[in-house]
Amino acid sequence: MTEQLLKDRDIEFLLYEFLDTEALLQRPRYSEHSREVFNATLATARTIADKYFADHYTKGDANEPSFDGEKVTLIEETQAAWHAFAEAGFLAAPYDFDEGGLQLPEVILRCAMAYINAANVGSAAYPFLTLGAANLVRSFASETLRETYLPPMMDGRYAGTMALTEPDQGSALADIRTTATPAADGSYRLRGQKMFISGGDQSITENIVHMVLARIKDAPPGVKGISLFLVPKFLPARDGQPATRNDVKLAGLLHKMGYRNTTSTVLNFGEDGGEDGGAIGYLVGEPHQGLFYMFQMMNEARIGVGSGAAVLGYRGYQHALQYAKERPQGRLPSNRDPHSKQLPIIQHADVRRMLLMQKSYVEGGLALCLYASSLVEDAHSGNSELERQNASELLDLLTPVVKSWPSKYCLKANDLAIQVLGGSGYIREYPLEQLYRDNRLNPIHEGTEGIQAMDLLGRKVPAKGMAGYQILAKEIHKTLSACTGNDTLQPLVEGLRDALNQLNGVSENLLLQMSADADRGLANASLYLDVFGRVVVSWIWLRQAAIAQEKLTGDANLPREDMDFYRGKLQAARFYIEWELPEITPQIALLESGNSVTFDMQGDWF
Amino acid sequence: MTEQLLKDRDIEFLLYEFLDTEALLQRPRYSEHSREVFNATLATARTIADKYFADHYTKGDANEPSFDGEKVTLIEETQAAWHAFAEAGFLAAPYDFDEGGLQLPEVILRCAMAYINAANVGSAAYPFLTLGAANLVRSFASETLRETYLPPMMDGRYAGTMALTEPDQGSALADIRTTATPAADGSYRLRGQKMFISGGDQSITENIVHMVLARIKDAPPGVKGISLFLVPKFLPARDGQPATRNDVKLAGLLHKMGYRNTTSTVLNFGEDGGEDGGAIGYLVGEPHQGLFYMFQMMNEARIGVGSGAAVLGYRGYQHALQYAKERPQGRLPSNRDPHSKQLPIIQHADVRRMLLMQKSYVEGGLALCLYASSLVEDAHSGNSELERQNASELLDLLTPVVKSWPSKYCLKANDLAIQVLGGSGYIREYPLEQLYRDNRLNPIHEGTEGIQAMDLLGRKVPAKGMAGYQILAKEIHKTLSACTGNDTLQPLVEGLRDALNQLNGVSENLLLQMSADADRGLANASLYLDVFGRVVVSWIWLRQAAIAQEKLTGDANLPREDMDFYRGKLQAARFYIEWELPEITPQIALLESGNSVTFDMQGDWF
Repeated sequence: MTEQLLKDRDIEFLLYEFLDTEALLQRPRYSEHSREVFNATLATARTIADKYFADHYTKGDANEPSFDGEKVTLIEETQAAWHAFAEAGFLAAPYDFDEGGLQLPEVILRCAMAYINAANVGSAAYPFLTLGAANLVRSFASETLRETYLPPMMDGRYAGTMALTEPDQGSALADIRTTATPAADGSYRLRGQKMFISGGDQSITENIVHMVLARIKDAPPGVKGISLFLVPKFLPARDGQPATRNDVKLAGLLHKMGYRNTTSTVLNFGEDGGEDGGAIGYLVGEPHQGLFYMFQMMNEARIGVGSGAAVLGYRGYQHALQYAKERPQGRLPSNRDPHSKQLPIIQHADVRRMLLMQKSYVEGGLALCLYASSLVEDAHSGNSELERQNASELLDLLTPVVKSWPSKYCLKANDLAIQVLGGSGYIREYPLEQLYRDNRLNPIHEGTEGIQAMDLLGRKVPAKGMAGYQILAKEIHKTLSACTGNDTLQPLVEGLRDALNQLNGVSENLLLQMSADADRGLANASLYLDVFGRVVVSWIWLRQAAIAQEKLTGDANLPREDMDFYRGKLQAARFYIEWELPEITPQIALLESGNSVTFDMQGDWF
Repeated sequence: MTEQLLKDRDIEFLLYEFLDTEALLQRPRYSEHSREVFNATLATARTIADKYFADHYTKGDANEPSFDGEKVTLIEETQAAWHAFAEAGFLAAPYDFDEGGLQLPEVILRCAMAYINAANVGSAAYPFLTLGAANLVRSFASETLRETYLPPMMDGRYAGTMALTEPDQGSALADIRTTATPAADGSYRLRGQKMFISGGDQSITENIVHMVLARIKDAPPGVKGISLFLVPKFLPARDGQPATRNDVKLAGLLHKMGYRNTTSTVLNFGEDGGEDGGAIGYLVGEPHQGLFYMFQMMNEARIGVGSGAAVLGYRGYQHALQYAKERPQGRLPSNRDPHSKQLPIIQHADVRRMLLMQKSYVEGGLALCLYASSLVEDAHSGNSELERQNASELLDLLTPVVKSWPSKYCLKANDLAIQVLGGSGYIREYPLEQLYRDNRLNPIHEGTEGIQAMDLLGRKVPAKGMAGYQILAKEIHKTLSACTGNDTLQPLVEGLRDALNQLNGVSENLLLQMSADADRGLANASLYLDVFGRVVVSWIWLRQAAIAQEKLTGDANLPREDMDFYRGKLQAARFYIEWELPEITPQIALLESGNSVTFDMQGDWF
C-alpha cells in the first residue's frame, strides 16, 4: 500500500480556494513570488518529507534516543533529515531576502511544515523548535546576539529549544525558580533545573541555543519577574565555531509513549559551579519581560501543535481510507446470501461514518490551522493598519482553539482510524497505532486543554471589551449572509446561525458569572472551549461547503474528479454541522445554568 | 506512591450494597459458603494480583514475547503468575465441589478477576481465556474429551484459547475457510490459518487447547456450516502427559501497541501434511453448531472485556486521584498573590472535572459489569424458571452494552488520567500511558464497537418481541418508582425518566426504519448503542445514588469516611445524569430523523 501523507488536491483547495493565498502576491513583500514559486516550495517540502522524514518514522519510534551518561545518540537518519530541511533553506524561510531568507509567506511555510510533520513528527520537532527560537532571537535579542546566533540557526549548524517548565511548577510559569545572577561582563549565570525540554540535547547539530526563562535576583514575584535568556550549549569562539562547553548538562532523558525520536530532557543549569558558578546566559530584551517575549514563541508553537495534530490525524485518515477501499469483509445487513462476495468494508455504513467523521476532523483541523497561519501573515503584512490589527486580535482569540481543537479531535481521528482497521490498527505492523501514540502528546504540550480553556474564557474572550470576539462574530455573519438563500446550504446556515446565537448568549452570561465569582465562573471553561471550537469549525466547514457548492453549480464541465472532491466537501460540512454541532445544546445548558457539580465536588468524596 | 489497584470500599459497596450478593447464600448451590468465604477469596485474589501480577506489569510491556522461529519466550514472571492463580484454585473456581471446583458464584469469580486484570491485563489473559475454553469443553464436549482435557485445564497444566479469526475474514465469521476433514478414527484433520489468536503459543504451560471454528467438507455455507473443534498443541498419551506434537504451528507473533505480555499469534493448522495431513482435532458437540457453542465463550469473553476495560480505567483513575492530591501547582483564578503557596492540583475545578468524569466512568463501568455477572449467575442458579429466564434475556440484551460501554468510556478515563498528570502522564516513568495503550484493545477484540452496535439494534432489541428490552424498561421503572419523592434524587429521577421515554420512542422508530430498509435502518446503529449505554449507565448510577442517599439520611452516626464515600457516589451520579446523559437528545434527533449523511456518503467523495 503506497501512502499519500496529505491529499494534494485538498492542499491546493485550502491554499487557493478556501484561502486566497494568491492575493499575497499583491503585497510588496511577496511581489517577487508567484503561485509557481509557492508550489515549487511545497513540492520540495513534500519530497523532503517523503525521502528524508517518512523513511525513518517507524525506526525512530522503535529505536528511541538513548543517553549513556555522556552523550545522547539518535538514529542517524534524524541528522540527514535535519540537513535536508536546512539545505532547502526552510530554516531561513520566513526571513527577508536581504537577511538571507526565502521571504516566504507564513501560510506556505506552515503548509510545508505540514508535510514534514505528517511524515515524521518526531524528527520534525527539531527544525520546528529551531524556527521558533530563531524568530525569538531575531525579534528581541541584541544586535550582538543576533549576529552571533542567527546565522548558524538559519543554516542548520545550531538548533534551538524553549526551556520553560521546571519539575516543581509544571504549567505554572509564575513559580519558575531558575535564577540568573548578573556577572561583571554583562552576561548572567543561570542555575536551576528544567524538565520536559524537547530537543534539549541531541546528536544532530554542533550547538544548541536554549531560550530559557529565569528569574533575576530580586525580581518581582510571579510572572512579572521572569526574564528571557539565551543559553548556548557551547560558547562560540570568535570564528563562530563552538568552543567552550557551557554548564548546561543533560540530567536524563524522559521516555515518552510516542513522539519518541524527539528527545525529552531534564537539563541542569549550573550544576558544576559553586557560589559563583552557573551556565553563562545572555539577557534577551529587557529584564522581567521574558514571558511577554516567550509568548511570541509559544503562540507560534501553539498553532504548530494544532497543525501537527491535524496532520497526524490526516495521515491516519488517508491510511484508513485506502484500507477501507481495499479490504473485503462481510456483507450488507440486507444480504442473506452467504455465497455472495464479501464487500470492501467502505460499503459498511458504520465504516463510512468513521471515515466521514475523520474527514470532518482532519480537513476541518488543517483548514483551521492554515487559516490561523494566514492571520499570522495578515497581522504582519496586511494591507492596512486596521487589517493587521484585526488579524492580530482575531488570532489572539483563536489561538487556544487552534491549539486544542485539532489536538482533541484529530487524536480522535487516529482513534477512529485504528477502529476502521480493527486488530490491524492495533499492531505495529501498521502505522496507525504510532500515529495515535504520537498525537496523544498534543493535548498536553504547549499548554494543556485546561490551560487553553482558561486562556480562552478568562483572557481572550473578555480582552479589550470582547474586541476579538466581535471580529469573529462579524466574520461568521459575513459567511452566513453570503450563503443565505442557497437551498443546498440553507440548513447549514441555519444550524450555524443558531449556534452562534447560543454562543453569544452563553459568552455574555459567563462573563457575568466570572465577574461575580472568578473561580466558579471559570470552573466549566473546558466545556466552553469545546462549544467554541465546534462553532468555529462549523464556520470553517460552511466556508468550504460554500466554495464547493459554487464550483458544483457554476461549471457544467467540471471533471468527474473535481465533482467528487467538492461533493465530499459538502458532505463533510453536512456531517459536521448536523452531527457534531448540535452537541453544543446540552453543553450550553450546563454553562448557562452555571452547573456546579464538578466545582462542588470535594477531594475527600472521591 | 503506593498504589491501590481498586478501591476496596467500593468493591464492598458493589457486592453487598449495590448487588445483594449475600442473598446467594440462600441458594442451595451456595449454602456452604458465607460472606467470609467470599471475602477471603477476594483477599486471596488481591494478594495474588499484587504479588504475582502487578510485579511485572511494566516489565512485560518493555520485554514483550519473542519468537525465534522455534519457540516463544515470555518473561518468566508470567509463568509464576499463572501458577499462583492456578494453585489458588481459580481455574476451577466456577465448577462444583464434586467436580473438584470451588463452586464459586460468578460475581465473586469476576470480582477476583477484576483485581487480576487491574494488576496486569497482559498476564491475566492466559487464565481468562483458559477459564472460557474449559467452560466450553465442560458444556459441550463428549465425556472422553472432558475427561482428557478438563482436569489439566482446571489445575493449570493446560491453557486454552479461542481460535475464530482468519486473515481473510476478520469479524465476518460466515466466511471462515479453515477446513475439517473426517478421519477414519472419528477425529478430524484441520487445515487453515488463524490470526490474532491470543495465547496461541506461549512458554507457560505444557500444553495448549485450541477451541477452533472450522468448516466440515460439504457443510452448508455461512454461519450454519461452522463446527467447533478441540485441537491440542500436543496429543496427550494415555497417562495424560503431552506426547505427540500436533500439526499446529506458530507462523508468527503480532506486535501490539499494548497488552503486550499476551502473545497475539498467527497459527497454521496442518501446514506439514500433504493431501491427508492436517492438525488432529476433535468435534465438540454436533456438526454445524459451532457458532452457537462458541457464543457461550464469546458472551463470557465480552463481559470479561468490558470488565477488563473498566478496571484498567479504574486503576488509572486511582493513580490520577492520588497524584492530584499530592502534586502542588498553581493557584485559583481569584488569587492574584504570587507569594501564596501553590495548591494541590485537585483544587483546580478542571482537574476535579476530569477526576469526577473518570469516577463516573470507571465506577459506573465496574458496577455495570458486576451486575452483568450477577445476571449470568441468576440465569444459572436463579430461584425460579422465570427468574432464570428473565436474567438470561436481560443479559442477552445488555451484553453488547457491557462489552462496549466500558471499552469506550474507561479508555476515555485513561485518557483523562493522562491529562491530569500532564507531561508525566505521557511518559513511561508513570503507569498511565501503558494503561491507555492496553485499554485501546478493548473496543476492538471480541467484536468491535460497530459489531456490538449491529448486535444490539439488529438482534438483541427486536429479539422475541422486544422481550429483553421490556424487562430492562421494567427494571428501570422499578428504580424510578423507588426513588420518586426523594428531594435529593428527584432531579436524577426526572432526567432518567425522560431519557427512558426518549429511548423507548426511538427504539420503536428504528425498528420501523429497519423493517422498511435494513441497511438504512441499521446505518446509525453505533449512535443508538451510545444512547442505550448512557441510559443504562444512568440507571446504574441512580441505583448507586439511591443507596447512598438512604445511608446518608438513615444513619445519624455514620462514620466520616462512609459519609464521604456516599457523598462521592451521589455526586458522581449527579455528574453522570446531568452532564453525560443529556447528550442523548441531539443523538436521538439524528436517529429519529433517520439522518443519512453517513449512509449517503460515497467512496469516491472521500
